Amino acid sequence: MDLEEKAAVTSGSSFWRSTAVTGVPQITLTDGPHGVRKALPDTTELLASEPATCFPPAVALGSTWDPAIARRVGEALGDEALAMDVQVLLGPGINLKRSPLGGRNFEYFAEDPLLTGVLAVEWVKGLQSRGVGASLKHYAVNSQETDRMRVSADLDERTLRELYLRAFQRVVTRAKPWTVMCAYNRVNGVLASQHHWLLTEVLRGEWGYEGLVVSDWGAVADRVEAVRAGLDLTMPGPDPEGDRRLVEAVRAGTLDESVLDTAVSRVSALVRAALAARTSATYDADAHHALAREVAGRGIVLLKNDGGVLPLRPGQGTVAVLGEHARTPRFQGGGSSQVTPTRLDNALDEITALAGGPVTFAPGYDDIDAAVALARDAAVALVFAGTERETEGADRDALDLPAAHVELIERVAAVNPRTVVVLSNGAVVRTTPWDAAVPAVVEGWLLGQAGGGAIADVLFGRVNPSGRLTETIPLHLADHPSYLDFPGEAGHVRYGEGVHVGYRGFDARQQQVAYPFGHGLSYTTFDYGPATVTATPDGLLVRLRVTNTGGRDGREVVQAYVSLPGSAVRRPPRELKAFANVAVAAGATVEVELPIARDDLAYWDTRLSRWIVEGGTYRVEVGASSRDLRVTATADVDGDPARAPLTGESTIAEWLSDPKGAEALGALFASLAADGEAGTMARTAGNPEMLTLMGSLPLSRLAVFAGEAFSAAAIEQLSASVN
Amino acid sequence: MDLEEKAAVTSGSSFWRSTAVTGVPQITLTDGPHGVRKALPDTTELLASEPATCFPPAVALGSTWDPAIARRVGEALGDEALAMDVQVLLGPGINLKRSPLGGRNFEYFAEDPLLTGVLAVEWVKGLQSRGVGASLKHYAVNSQETDRMRVSADLDERTLRELYLRAFQRVVTRAKPWTVMCAYNRVNGVLASQHHWLLTEVLRGEWGYEGLVVSDWGAVADRVEAVRAGLDLTMPGPDPEGDRRLVEAVRAGTLDESVLDTAVSRVSALVRAALAARTSATYDADAHHALAREVAGRGIVLLKNDGGVLPLRPGQGTVAVLGEHARTPRFQGGGSSQVTPTRLDNALDEITALAGGPVTFAPGYDDIDAAVALARDAAVALVFAGTERETEGADRDALDLPAAHVELIERVAAVNPRTVVVLSNGAVVRTTPWDAAVPAVVEGWLLGQAGGGAIADVLFGRVNPSGRLTETIPLHLADHPSYLDFPGEAGHVRYGEGVHVGYRGFDARQQQVAYPFGHGLSYTTFDYGPATVTATPDGLLVRLRVTNTGGRDGREVVQAYVSLPGSAVRRPPRELKAFANVAVAAGATVEVELPIARDDLAYWDTRLSRWIVEGGTYRVEVGASSRDLRVTATADVDGDPARAPLTGESTIAEWLSDPKGAEALGALFASLAADGEAGTMARTAGNPEMLTLMGSLPLSRLAVFAGEAFSAAAIEQLSASVN
Repeated sequence: MDLEEKAAVTSGSSFWRSTAVTGVPQITLTDGPHGVRKALPDTTELLASEPATCFPPAVALGSTWDPAIARRVGEALGDEALAMDVQVLLGPGINLKRSPLGGRNFEYFAEDPLLTGVLAVEWVKGLQSRGVGASLKHYAVNSQETDRMRVSADLDERTLRELYLRAFQRVVTRAKPWTVMCAYNRVNGVLASQHHWLLTEVLRGEWGYEGLVVSDWGAVADRVEAVRAGLDLTMPGPDPEGDRRLVEAVRAGTLDESVLDTAVSRVSALVRAALAARTSATYDADAHHALAREVAGRGIVLLKNDGGVLPLRPGQGTVAVLGEHARTPRFQGGGSSQVTPTRLDNALDEITALAGGPVTFAPGYDDIDAAVALARDAAVALVFAGTERETEGADRDALDLPAAHVELIERVAAVNPRTVVVLSNGAVVRTTPWDAAVPAVVEGWLLGQAGGGAIADVLFGRVNPSGRLTETIPLHLADHPSYLDFPGEAGHVRYGEGVHVGYRGFDARQQQVAYPFGHGLSYTTFDYGPATVTATPDGLLVRLRVTNTGGRDGREVVQAYVSLPGSAVRRPPRELKAFANVAVAAGATVEVELPIARDDLAYWDTRLSRWIVEGGTYRVEVGASSRDLRVTATADVDGDPARAPLTGESTIAEWLSDPKGAEALGALFASLAADGEAGTMARTAGNPEMLTLMGSLPLSRLAVFAGEAFSAAAIEQLSASVN
Repeated sequence: MDLEEKAAVTSGSSFWRSTAVTGVPQITLTDGPHGVRKALPDTTELLASEPATCFPPAVALGSTWDPAIARRVGEALGDEALAMDVQVLLGPGINLKRSPLGGRNFEYFAEDPLLTGVLAVEWVKGLQSRGVGASLKHYAVNSQETDRMRVSADLDERTLRELYLRAFQRVVTRAKPWTVMCAYNRVNGVLASQHHWLLTEVLRGEWGYEGLVVSDWGAVADRVEAVRAGLDLTMPGPDPEGDRRLVEAVRAGTLDESVLDTAVSRVSALVRAALAARTSATYDADAHHALAREVAGRGIVLLKNDGGVLPLRPGQGTVAVLGEHARTPRFQGGGSSQVTPTRLDNALDEITALAGGPVTFAPGYDDIDAAVALARDAAVALVFAGTERETEGADRDALDLPAAHVELIERVAAVNPRTVVVLSNGAVVRTTPWDAAVPAVVEGWLLGQAGGGAIADVLFGRVNPSGRLTETIPLHLADHPSYLDFPGEAGHVRYGEGVHVGYRGFDARQQQVAYPFGHGLSYTTFDYGPATVTATPDGLLVRLRVTNTGGRDGREVVQAYVSLPGSAVRRPPRELKAFANVAVAAGATVEVELPIARDDLAYWDTRLSRWIVEGGTYRVEVGASSRDLRVTATADVDGDPARAPLTGESTIAEWLSDPKGAEALGALFASLAADGEAGTMARTAGNPEMLTLMGSLPLSRLAVFAGEAFSAAAIEQLSASVN
């Protein structure tokens, strides 16, 4: 392979194809994540694509809190990709939902990295089990659409490590995705596509990643810098100017050819592996549609159900279905993930099929009077409301539902006390004040092509709802931890809330919320027995018994939140560290085990530049949501060794709090006690007032107060004597 | 002067003296700011000092909102400094009160930079009018005591410029302080003492500062780096090791001797000017005590006065004075500002002098039963409560009063409905829930040596209160904008709330507060007439009439808050831009003029690296506090020119929103329309969906989508054609 070919193979040859050169054929990479979006050739519509099953977008898949379901979706997507001769599917998207306004939230799982990571691991394993590569995206800190190709996400390293990189770390180390896709944005000033620390030091150096790094489409500004940083494949292409610059850089000696060779070898390895795994396949579109319905049913979250108005019983009178969304479903968002579905259910038809009695319908938003008239005559009124559109490329500017939808809800509720609101939205919407006026709210997200049936299943109790919120629903947008810093300005967005993302921030500030993270009701009830927590070399093991005390089979999502009172670093009041999704038959009891990996107890120590598990008594709260905590238990954990040596930069207080340091420094002070102003200082150094004033002084600064006794050489000697 | 002497003269010769070398005598620099703290020689107590008037600390002086009072205090301090042969007084302290927990808040004026700056300008002018130099401190971003000598304040440039540097800029440019004192902390990773950008580029380059920069005591870690950064005088000293390093650096050529010469010349100029201004002087201790009482009376803030329980009328029955603070006043904080007062009044004696009837007293906190018994038998109960201690060197860890004080208040209030709480504290304390139980709360801060008399003056109506809050009193600490990021950890504190400091943040998040910024009651009432706002070349001029509608002479602090709806940058909902402190006789009306400088309308544009006044319709809200806004008016302001040229880094959306850019790009797209995938993109570039997806793409990135038409050379040409 000559130098020109090496350069060429590190970019695409077209929108969706890699470049073939001597010895390296081509592969196809295609958008996901919730369906295979294989572009049609020769179309004037850039986003036109072949039909494929539109599974529930990540917002709904995440709400299942079920890794097994995520795996089955991954497997099904793999089967469809094989059938369409696609070698790499561009997903999963695992960025954190930092703000509810994020335009692409519907493509992401959660505001929590553990939940995101656990689900994505299984999704990737499922997909790759079929011989189709995943593309873990968008690496990293891609939390908004506003100015997405330029904006710098400015955040501290602890926040970066513990929140925004955490799910990536989990999926890379546990599921080994074939590819990782870099993000469009900058991270602390450097484009993610050209970020050596992210792409090489952390991803490969620390996490041991051996796969390929591909750019998001158009993310690379400078091919030479990108290759130098560890990016292997720039998409799309061709990019003859970039190729020339790579060749020139190697010839000029400003880019070591071995660095380019490494990228080439990774492209070549990916292509070889992908083509070796290629098999001709078909898939069962009916079965996949049924799977899409099952997953959608599991992703629906029952937010409110006063008086047990749900489930509806068939044949109990007229059901008024109100709102165009019931007939024309919002089932996915706009942008690169937009799939051409193999078919499309709507809730109106599906409700009609299950109602066992008369169903009336009005489109609502534009003719509220007609809807109200139907509601007045109905046994139950189902109001479909939601957002009009969410799409890649644009953030939302408010949490509120369209005014007409709110008016529809309120006017219908005023005439029919059995009003149920069914929401369709890709990210949370404000539910106040209208939710107080209705007995039941069903959060239906964007549910994919079979969502209409899934909604009917839940409404009529064919599915007992078990979905849970993966993001907090705030009372007001202004309450949100990200509020003051979203979407930033002038090319920068400060992650001012730090580690206090989502529920972490609401809990830290003791704020009321509309519906908390982890919340979701069922048609049955569960009792939690006492929990035990055992410390093991691998971490913690939480055990408890959960009993279905109602009359209906159901699933419970048992959540374990951990904190360390008295931690050396500021931590959120509680963080999700384990969960289990368990099916419990009516009246039955199950044993639930929640293993918490020791790694997941660690914080990132910025001084030592490594993960540290602090020793101490950890508190584990177990419950049905982050604010419905049923039982608490504690366990003592041995900490990692983490003592820092005493130096001239250590403060007087730090010296005095160390037994050997205190002894050495005390002796030195005593020797100075007769020495003028220095003596005055030395004599009084032990008293509490002086310690308050001077305790924060790094020892080396004493030179200007007390002279040569604190020269650099003297302090070096003193330090050596105590370390 | 030889090189060794040059080095030596850039540090102190002792704690409080500069170094004399050939041709340069010595001067004395001594702590302030609210009194002259001249150290006693030959003492074993490091903080022992000669008696001097202890004026009200900045927390109380700031609460006067009166520049004229600040000037008179500066003048009086100058007289005392002259009398004690002190050439430079180390004040004023003008850091922002970022968090209510800041241990040194009592030494600072406000959570607002305009208020701080206006007061400090007059203080400096007053002091320096006597021939004594000020030391404007602590430059910059010194908002906490925790790890104060090492911690890095991490903040973005707009926040730095608009909030934390703003008062410094005002005082430097308007009052020309003889010295500026650098802070202990780091700013974005660099020690303030060694921060070239702060000390040289901004302070001297942009603001034209010609005075001397002195270090805070012990702030310098590296003398060579400090001199290189623009620090002239390291204190204290001597520092023979640092002197040697300076000499070595010059000899080795790593420090240009001219840089050292500049520092030497500034020290020399300061010493010459200071000694030229030196006069022998005395001061009238009685007159200064009276001034201290007057200022203290003006700094007291009447937070609550339901049913007009205050003022008390002499001779109306027994007054029970409860709480040790009434007898043993908390009148200043601990640390370098701690003055040995010339005398010390206490509230108990002063109340007894004015009461005209029986006064009983119980110390309270340790024997609440005795206090309650007295309260039960009294016509009115005065409960003195407050913090036990605030000091330099330590931040507070909670807002709450000591539990015994709260219990005292609540138990006394339970037996006497005419209970008045008088607070003594250096920074705000939580007032909920106990303030609901009492009709009146008097915020007495730390009031200096004559504070006891001032409290009696306000309680008995000899002074009609006119003090106003310079900091918000929150309902809960967790509500505060700084809450999640104070005091930081591991050597860093993120200023996560950005420009939303204090009331700016509470307003932005629409939070309830206990008492808002600017709040303070009077024993009379004021009516606001309609306001007019006129745009002038200098800014805005607000005019209105204010009428004293009560039966008592009083002072009103008329506050003007400005906002720009639709601003290009995120701004707080309102910012204080002018205020006037006016005396209004009972029944009289005064004309109030509030000039707002055009400079004070500007925001810091981080892309253009300069202040920009945006054009638009500014809204001015005028009122008696930040949440008691009485009248609103608007004015159109012409903006500064600020167009940025179109480049390859400009996005497609930016190109298309510019008329010439849209024309040029449209023509280019049209020429590509037949060109395969690039053609598909070009043909669809105009449609809204494509623009949502691709609009954020910098034009140069089109190279990988659409080839050579968007090469670097082609884009350069395109840009040239439109700029």
